[in-house]
Amino acid sequence: MNSPAASPAPSNSPRFAILVAGGSGTRMGAGRPKQFLELLGEPVLLHTLRRFTEAALRVQECIVVLPQDQFAIWQELCDQHRVTIPHTVVAGGHSRWASVRNGLIHLQGLTTGTVAVHDGVRPLVPASVIEATFAAAEEHGAAIAAVAPKDSVRSVSQQGSFALDRSRLRLVQTPQCFELTLLQRAYQLPELSTFTDDASVVEDLHPIQLVPGDYRNLKITTPEDLVVAEALLRSPAL
Amino acid sequence: MNSPAASPAPSNSPRFAILVAGGSGTRMGAGRPKQFLELLGEPVLLHTLRRFTEAALRVQECIVVLPQDQFAIWQELCDQHRVTIPHTVVAGGHSRWASVRNGLIHLQGLTTGTVAVHDGVRPLVPASVIEATFAAAEEHGAAIAAVAPKDSVRSVSQQGSFALDRSRLRLVQTPQCFELTLLQRAYQLPELSTFTDDASVVEDLHPIQLVPGDYRNLKITTPEDLVVAEALLRSPAL
Repeated sequence: MNSPAASPAPSNSPRFAILVAGGSGTRMGAGRPKQFLELLGEPVLLHTLRRFTEAALRVQECIVVLPQDQFAIWQELCDQHRVTIPHTVVAGGHSRWASVRNGLIHLQGLTTGTVAVHDGVRPLVPASVIEATFAAAEEHGAAIAAVAPKDSVRSVSQQGSFALDRSRLRLVQTPQCFELTLLQRAYQLPELSTFTDDASVVEDLHPIQLVPGDYRNLKITTPEDLVVAEALLRSPAL
Repeated sequence: MNSPAASPAPSNSPRFAILVAGGSGTRMGAGRPKQFLELLGEPVLLHTLRRFTEAALRVQECIVVLPQDQFAIWQELCDQHRVTIPHTVVAGGHSRWASVRNGLIHLQGLTTGTVAVHDGVRPLVPASVIEATFAAAEEHGAAIAAVAPKDSVRSVSQQGSFALDRSRLRLVQTPQCFELTLLQRAYQLPELSTFTDDASVVEDLHPIQLVPGDYRNLKITTPEDLVVAEALLRSPAL
């Protein structure tokens, strides 16, 4: 692994966020893409956008990546919910990788800053996790939020299955934050089928720091996730 | 790995369940052990016990393993909730392994049957998952419920972290079901620090079948888990 020493970003280095929302809604069995499902009366993606535009995070520009044929419905939802949060909408691609690349193309020409890539359907991410991930990337070049598995983990193969040491494993969440030019370089390489997230795109170029994520930072992919997210948002205790 | 061919159990082979509840409550930050916390007005452990005593599952005896100093409070809760479900209470040991072994000692002398080991704090396990795991163990000797991780997974070491192929990984739940004498043999071996569940105790003696678990089958270990469990139980859609 090639691991150049990262030069810490100055504290006034600009921050950007790419919120990737590519869902078509088929997996949820719902009438609309999961990023537009209602969570306490507002679209999931709007919750997510609000998280990244909290003033203390100093995110300069939020780029929402959506399938082009969903631009109109998003605009309609923004009108309906009187959304005044400034953000840029960019058309997605054929895969998550292509969608993030399209978001990055929007930042072409910039040579300084840190960019967070975040799933549009992770609306519960705490601001503290976003801040910690940005800060770690500003110091080390690349940082992602992750949590330890609560359950035992097994590896499966055609020969059977065997237990792994769970203390050495992490479940990866987003945000995943990178020094801007590092992420740009990584996304100039060809797409591989092994890319499951941005850390996997970057890891051949630069070591990835892990930052403690949050168990509540779930990804809305099934109907029960929506039930769970609503309960967590409602809970005064959390 | 030594893998003797399992002889399928006859369909009238008796079924047993060991429900392990060793929590002291300190991790939840609550006043009482997590197995006694209220979930929709009833103790978590009572929900779990109900799951295993559904008639269609044909479980002959449920053994609840509890720290000895919690026997009185469990009795009190059973009186308060007018619990008439027959079950046996057995004293736990210094670790999960020792607690399961104590449950098994209660079944000493029996030479036929299948035993499910289940976390007392997984109150949402669907009956279909219990049935499927029993059935697979009756056919193959050892079977556990597991789900694929929804998130990317990384392996961490002092050298950094790297992505694993998540399609080859499973998050292990309970129930974990075993042919009775196989589990008895496994628990006669010394305890190892690598034991995280019953599959890890058995796997040197017999291959472990994986059965599809359920994402709702969560283990109540943190305050947000209780919020989530309550929402899932309340949800009419699920």
